[in-house]
Amino acid sequence: MEVKKVPIVKSILSANDQVSYTNQKLLDQKGIFSINIMASPGAGKTSFILQTIKILSVNRKIGVIEGDTAPVTIDSDKMTAVGIPSVQINTGGDCHLDAMMIDEALKQLDLAKLDLIIVENVGNLICPAAFKLGTHMNVLIASVPEGDDKPYKYPAMYRGVDVLILNKIDLLPYVTFNQDYFLQGVKMLNPNLKTFLVSCKTGEGISVWTDWLAEHLKAKKK
Amino acid sequence: MEVKKVPIVKSILSANDQVSYTNQKLLDQKGIFSINIMASPGAGKTSFILQTIKILSVNRKIGVIEGDTAPVTIDSDKMTAVGIPSVQINTGGDCHLDAMMIDEALKQLDLAKLDLIIVENVGNLICPAAFKLGTHMNVLIASVPEGDDKPYKYPAMYRGVDVLILNKIDLLPYVTFNQDYFLQGVKMLNPNLKTFLVSCKTGEGISVWTDWLAEHLKAKKK
Repeated sequence: MEVKKVPIVKSILSANDQVSYTNQKLLDQKGIFSINIMASPGAGKTSFILQTIKILSVNRKIGVIEGDTAPVTIDSDKMTAVGIPSVQINTGGDCHLDAMMIDEALKQLDLAKLDLIIVENVGNLICPAAFKLGTHMNVLIASVPEGDDKPYKYPAMYRGVDVLILNKIDLLPYVTFNQDYFLQGVKMLNPNLKTFLVSCKTGEGISVWTDWLAEHLKAKKK
Repeated sequence: MEVKKVPIVKSILSANDQVSYTNQKLLDQKGIFSINIMASPGAGKTSFILQTIKILSVNRKIGVIEGDTAPVTIDSDKMTAVGIPSVQINTGGDCHLDAMMIDEALKQLDLAKLDLIIVENVGNLICPAAFKLGTHMNVLIASVPEGDDKPYKYPAMYRGVDVLILNKIDLLPYVTFNQDYFLQGVKMLNPNLKTFLVSCKTGEGISVWTDWLAEHLKAKKK
């Protein structure tokens, strides 16, 4: 019953892929590394970005692009409050960011003054997986209270990312979450997925991630 | 940049609305009440359905339709384990159920033997809001660890539902969740939304919901 939609989706994806390519080319020319953060609603994307900024902005010039389905500025206001330049994208109800939206957002940032851009995608475990943005690294944030079965239920998302963050590990004592079952599901889909266990609330594990990212950025520069 | 998609979405919605109408007509003829449960991934849809069944299946003949984006039977297996007839729909990556999928699923249930059908939609706070299924009641499950800003960020979903369940209230002592801010956002979008506070883990508040639903079903029969 989905057949009728296939040709349409294909043409959108193809246009999206083209713009995604030019986005990455522009970022490369400017020497900017970029990260696309995806997660279900409330997994802690904004808190994770704020924690990352707190450590990395000492040595890096960071900008943020915030995606939401509604015309709100809750997340970009949080970035502005800590002195980080940010652009808010309202998708107008759409369930994901796309490369054209990022193209528009990049025009509103002073790229000469940045060396890292973090994109916060719309809260959704399905749609964002299908749309490349032109970013260099796809990061998925899972969270403990979401449950340990998510890799099995949202395989496309887990398959397509470069880094996995398991957030809210401070809640492990209070919820049923079988870490082995979760990680087994992840391994099945994405065997070498770089994985970090963190709590954005307590800060646990954050520096392991930022140290790794800093090393990764250094290696890219060489 | 979204203009090109409008005519397509419109035609899909129109076909969907027609099938949604015939689904509800069929359910009415059979004297079956039906509920569409929506939520973000991991808010507790399956646990909520299991808790509801535990109480209501004493007096009601219940069937369940499970929607997932991947070919898994994790949720429908849980229903079968408690003796509830269930149908699993694999959307093939699509981010929501639609009326055509429900039409197919209803053919696989023995409708003469049921008086309540619970549909578990795909875990997503955006797409399912736009697709009527033909069910009689739309229920949204929010969960405490998702955060108190979700009504502000996903207004279409909060605006379109008849009942709101705030789940995982057992986690209130361990997370930052301003209940007033959350409920204020809900009220702004959907002023008279019937709201229940529950914990599917401890069972707290579940009987308040099932008592209300049982009364609602009785009133419908009159």
